Amino acid sequence: MAASMMRMVLMVALLFVSAVLPARANDRDALLTKPGVFGTFAAFQMDHDWWDLNGEARVIAVSEVKGLIEQFSHKVVIESYLLRGLSDHADLMFRIHAHALSDTQQFLISLLGTRLGRHLVATSYLHGLTRQAAYVPGFPEQMKKELQPATSDAGLKSYAIVIPIRKDAEWWALDQDTRATLMQEHTQVALPYINTVKRKLYHSSGLDDFDFITYFETDKLEDFHGLIRALEQVKEYRHDRRFGHPTLLGTIRPLDDILELFAR
Amino acid sequence: MAASMMRMVLMVALLFVSAVLPARANDRDALLTKPGVFGTFAAFQMDHDWWDLNGEARVIAVSEVKGLIEQFSHKVVIESYLLRGLSDHADLMFRIHAHALSDTQQFLISLLGTRLGRHLVATSYLHGLTRQAAYVPGFPEQMKKELQPATSDAGLKSYAIVIPIRKDAEWWALDQDTRATLMQEHTQVALPYINTVKRKLYHSSGLDDFDFITYFETDKLEDFHGLIRALEQVKEYRHDRRFGHPTLLGTIRPLDDILELFAR
Amino acid sequence: MAASMMRMVLMVALLFVSAVLPARANDRDALLTKPGVFGTFAAFQMDHDWWDLNGEARVIAVSEVKGLIEQFSHKVVIESYLLRGLSDHADLMFRIHAHALSDTQQFLISLLGTRLGRHLVATSYLHGLTRQAAYVPGFPEQMKKELQPATSDAGLKSYAIVIPIRKDAEWWALDQDTRATLMQEHTQVALPYINTVKRKLYHSSGLDDFDFITYFETDKLEDFHGLIRALEQVKEYRHDRRFGHPTLLGTIRPLDDILELFAR
Amino acid sequence: MAASMMRMVLMVALLFVSAVLPARANDRDALLTKPGVFGTFAAFQMDHDWWDLNGEARVIAVSEVKGLIEQFSHKVVIESYLLRGLSDHADLMFRIHAHALSDTQQFLISLLGTRLGRHLVATSYLHGLTRQAAYVPGFPEQMKKELQPATSDAGLKSYAIVIPIRKDAEWWALDQDTRATLMQEHTQVALPYINTVKRKLYHSSGLDDFDFITYFETDKLEDFHGLIRALEQVKEYRHDRRFGHPTLLGTIRPLDDILELFAR
Amino acid sequence: MAASMMRMVLMVALLFVSAVLPARANDRDALLTKPGVFGTFAAFQMDHDWWDLNGEARVIAVSEVKGLIEQFSHKVVIESYLLRGLSDHADLMFRIHAHALSDTQQFLISLLGTRLGRHLVATSYLHGLTRQAAYVPGFPEQMKKELQPATSDAGLKSYAIVIPIRKDAEWWALDQDTRATLMQEHTQVALPYINTVKRKLYHSSGLDDFDFITYFETDKLEDFHGLIRALEQVKEYRHDRRFGHPTLLGTIRPLDDILELFAR
Repeated sequence: MAASMMRMVLMVALLFVSAVLPARANDRDALLTKPGVFGTFAAFQMDHDWWDLNGEARVIAVSEVKGLIEQFSHKVVIESYLLRGLSDHADLMFRIHAHALSDTQQFLISLLGTRLGRHLVATSYLHGLTRQAAYVPGFPEQMKKELQPATSDAGLKSYAIVIPIRKDAEWWALDQDTRATLMQEHTQVALPYINTVKRKLYHSSGLDDFDFITYFETDKLEDFHGLIRALEQVKEYRHDRRFGHPTLLGTIRPLDDILELFAR
Repeated sequence: MAASMMRMVLMVALLFVSAVLPARANDRDALLTKPGVFGTFAAFQMDHDWWDLNGEARVIAVSEVKGLIEQFSHKVVIESYLLRGLSDHADLMFRIHAHALSDTQQFLISLLGTRLGRHLVATSYLHGLTRQAAYVPGFPEQMKKELQPATSDAGLKSYAIVIPIRKDAEWWALDQDTRATLMQEHTQVALPYINTVKRKLYHSSGLDDFDFITYFETDKLEDFHGLIRALEQVKEYRHDRRFGHPTLLGTIRPLDDILELFAR
Repeated sequence: MAASMMRMVLMVALLFVSAVLPARANDRDALLTKPGVFGTFAAFQMDHDWWDLNGEARVIAVSEVKGLIEQFSHKVVIESYLLRGLSDHADLMFRIHAHALSDTQQFLISLLGTRLGRHLVATSYLHGLTRQAAYVPGFPEQMKKELQPATSDAGLKSYAIVIPIRKDAEWWALDQDTRATLMQEHTQVALPYINTVKRKLYHSSGLDDFDFITYFETDKLEDFHGLIRALEQVKEYRHDRRFGHPTLLGTIRPLDDILELFAR
Repeated sequence: MAASMMRMVLMVALLFVSAVLPARANDRDALLTKPGVFGTFAAFQMDHDWWDLNGEARVIAVSEVKGLIEQFSHKVVIESYLLRGLSDHADLMFRIHAHALSDTQQFLISLLGTRLGRHLVATSYLHGLTRQAAYVPGFPEQMKKELQPATSDAGLKSYAIVIPIRKDAEWWALDQDTRATLMQEHTQVALPYINTVKRKLYHSSGLDDFDFITYFETDKLEDFHGLIRALEQVKEYRHDRRFGHPTLLGTIRPLDDILELFAR
Repeated sequence: MAASMMRMVLMVALLFVSAVLPARANDRDALLTKPGVFGTFAAFQMDHDWWDLNGEARVIAVSEVKGLIEQFSHKVVIESYLLRGLSDHADLMFRIHAHALSDTQQFLISLLGTRLGRHLVATSYLHGLTRQAAYVPGFPEQMKKELQPATSDAGLKSYAIVIPIRKDAEWWALDQDTRATLMQEHTQVALPYINTVKRKLYHSSGLDDFDFITYFETDKLEDFHGLIRALEQVKEYRHDRRFGHPTLLGTIRPLDDILELFAR
């Protein structure tokens, strides 16, 4: 009954938010590329009751989430992934970048408080911090050059994979030089995949039960598989006490697409 | 009330789909035999509410799933298995072959969106990639010959078993020759079972928490058991950090049979 | 309303089934004693809704299960165990012997489809195969003689215990002679318990996540405990990578008793 | 409506039971002190529906449990513990001593069948057997003397802790003398705590997934903690493959107190 | 209907409790700083039904909890944390300090008995004991001096992290001197973080399934991460058999803020 009015209010709110936040682009860029930024991977399942809501109720719920994300867009960068149909324990995932984890918390609490959020069951939250590359500065110049991907990043990638990792105590007990040598071997075997598989590393010791979160984007899943197979064959892999568990696999999708799917 | 109309619509849809997809057979063959194809094993449980639906509602729900599978048959090959009564954590399983995992995702999302799908609880999804045999080319000619099953594949098999495997880091650290020698020993002990137990291998490193998915079909479960017992006794087995967990055991059944069972 | 009619139909069905299956005894004997038979241990919990059914509904539901078991008795031998009050994760268990696992599957699917079955939650299914004793033929004659229990099997046992076992890779890598020697030591320490603790071994590699299922019956639980303690002290025990998990402990009870308990 | 009548019936039942069981005291003493007795630790959670019952319904339910315990008191000794507020996975626990585990089973089945029992969710059952001390006879006389607690047992203890233990295969492979030496060291470091921390040992190999259940009572939790810390520092501790998981911590309370809490 | 009256009663109760407990400050100080105090970390999830209560019902429920905490404030010190949005398995956490764990139990039972408490699901309880520093007395004087944080503790910290730890048997088998040397190295690498990351240690052997609970407060999560990374690189870390699982991460918030969030 009050649904159409609600929808109108939300649309007005959206317009307003868009108007007052013109300079978001630079912030967004910094959050996605600089060190010292917190990255959170938050995967959710939709509970069964969601699908029992009628169409209009779902449309309003989705609208509300869009408004919320717009509202937070000056503080956090939010990307969305569709896990449903590829992961057995989650339907969607957000990757959230923020300068402060308290901003991420505020966003997620607000999200969970929406009509749609009431139907989200948190299945795994992983937190990490971006840092300056630890070993790359000592790598040979040629390798450093090869580490620049030839193709621009602009091309839209289809798949995203998140693999958290915990190293064993022996790894951390190695001196910095030994670790650097092992990481150079690791990097060497990864080079052939640099143009088709994009990687990003987050450091998570203390923030969750892992040491690293490795994030991948690719159009060619067979190349991604080849990369992981190659990385399993270097000595550094022996120090991965836990690799995956969970491995999160999904497709990169604009939030609108995902929410539309959940509004059908 | 609108149920019989719905049923008629679905039947028309089925006829239409069959008509526009005459050349499916070749695709199907390629998907089932070529390297570079993605295989997904998706096991589900029926929730309790399903059984409370009345007969007609269940028949319509089943009809809708059949139509959906027909509709996707030009992009994905879907095989069905009855796990109920043999596995304590799943009732049915699909094996889905596709050139792109995004097609598999689209199918599974559509499936979960059907009336029947609302009652499916995903219990495990495993993803793998078919690849050219890595070690066979270096095997002795005699062994290669013996690896061709004498009986044709045409004979209907009754049972299917899925065993995912994770190798330890030591395995991957071995050089290719050593691994080839170990795999030759592995293959040798498997030869006596080649005519009664059919195997297919999927590579899954990075796509889920395993390195391989091994898939078996057999009419003689005692031979299958004998094969696994033989494989446990070769040196390569020492490098299986995880073997099974889950082991999925079921019978191969046309989807109609399975759905009929769930429509009773 | 139609309940009393239903009950009558079931009773007639029971009479009929009994009449057409006069020669079951021999089959039963073969299934329980011969090698090459599949044994399934299926443990269930009753869900909470069961207890909310009214008395008559429960009585009918129980009747239906009895009819079903009678109906399957020419293909599968079904024994029943009461786990409730001794196991924290299961209320009842069936041990099912069959020449083909597909018969067991058919029975369990039928069971789950009954009114009572709708309230059963499968907690663990274990499958194994009976085989000729592998090491006994090489044992000294005296030991073979002692392996024949002095007392007849006829005495009713009270308790049953199921302990699944997974051996480590080292075990399977040992040669047959070494394993035979270790099994002889194992058998030696078990001899003192041969008259009070009955054992049966099932081979399960590939059929579930274990290598063996060990099944025990006893009137003297303290003797059974003594036997396990003795078996823990021989060298072969070092090769048990997993022992129990789950350990299933219950009392052997005619199905009528168990069902009556669930019909109260 | 029929509630007050029910209550009257229960009260009469209680009176009757009390009357016919005058000689329980000796049995109780034997069950709590002799070897060859089975001890069961059964921990439960109250489900959420319980708290929705109205006051009268809860009072009747509690009454029924008291009657049941009285009724079983000639066969089993039942002690009660409040875990709620100290354990995250259980609200109450019973320690049940019986000459036969089938009596314990009968009691627990009856308990689960009461109005209150319908709301109990079994979270862990642990079973063990009391035995003659295995190593103490070989200890020095002085140590044996010190093992007699100076203060009488009469003093009411406040806290109870249950820690199940599984030893590794190496432990059981040690010869009796070596184990006795290690247990003497274990006992030595425990001596300072003998007057403030009461211990009781149950042997559980084969009866559940552990080898021992260690049970503690104390008024001084800091002493108990000190005892465990001391026991962690002796060589025998290296052979504990599993220690706790679960650790059950609660307060010793008369059943009336606990049930009153659940009847509020 | 009786809601406003209830609210009035609660307000009166609050006033009364405040009046009779004037001298709480000293107790509080002792509980938070002295050895021999029990610390409990109790994390909870709100169940889904909570969010279905109407506004007034939630306000009353929150009021009741505030009154309860006030009432217990002379016996236990209760601090509150918001985990929602940062932890996938808990929404809020209490840290409770008490001289006796039975007081903590009484508080938590009372809490669970409130209208709000009925909607709390306990996800993890961890218990520990504060003790005199074991190794610090033997540290060099300079290090002891550096262990005094330069800035006062008064500054409000934003984040709190709880990491429980279980040491391996080898750690406890080391002699006190060796452990002291290892802890000195541990302390040395932690010194740079002393002013931005506050730590508190609880000993928990026997009280739960861990040996220690480490508690951290910080405004600078990146420093906290740096601290953990540094601690992973010292030899003592090799003896951490379990580190985290769970790692609890949240923000420090007055209870009013948290409850208001749950009352919206």
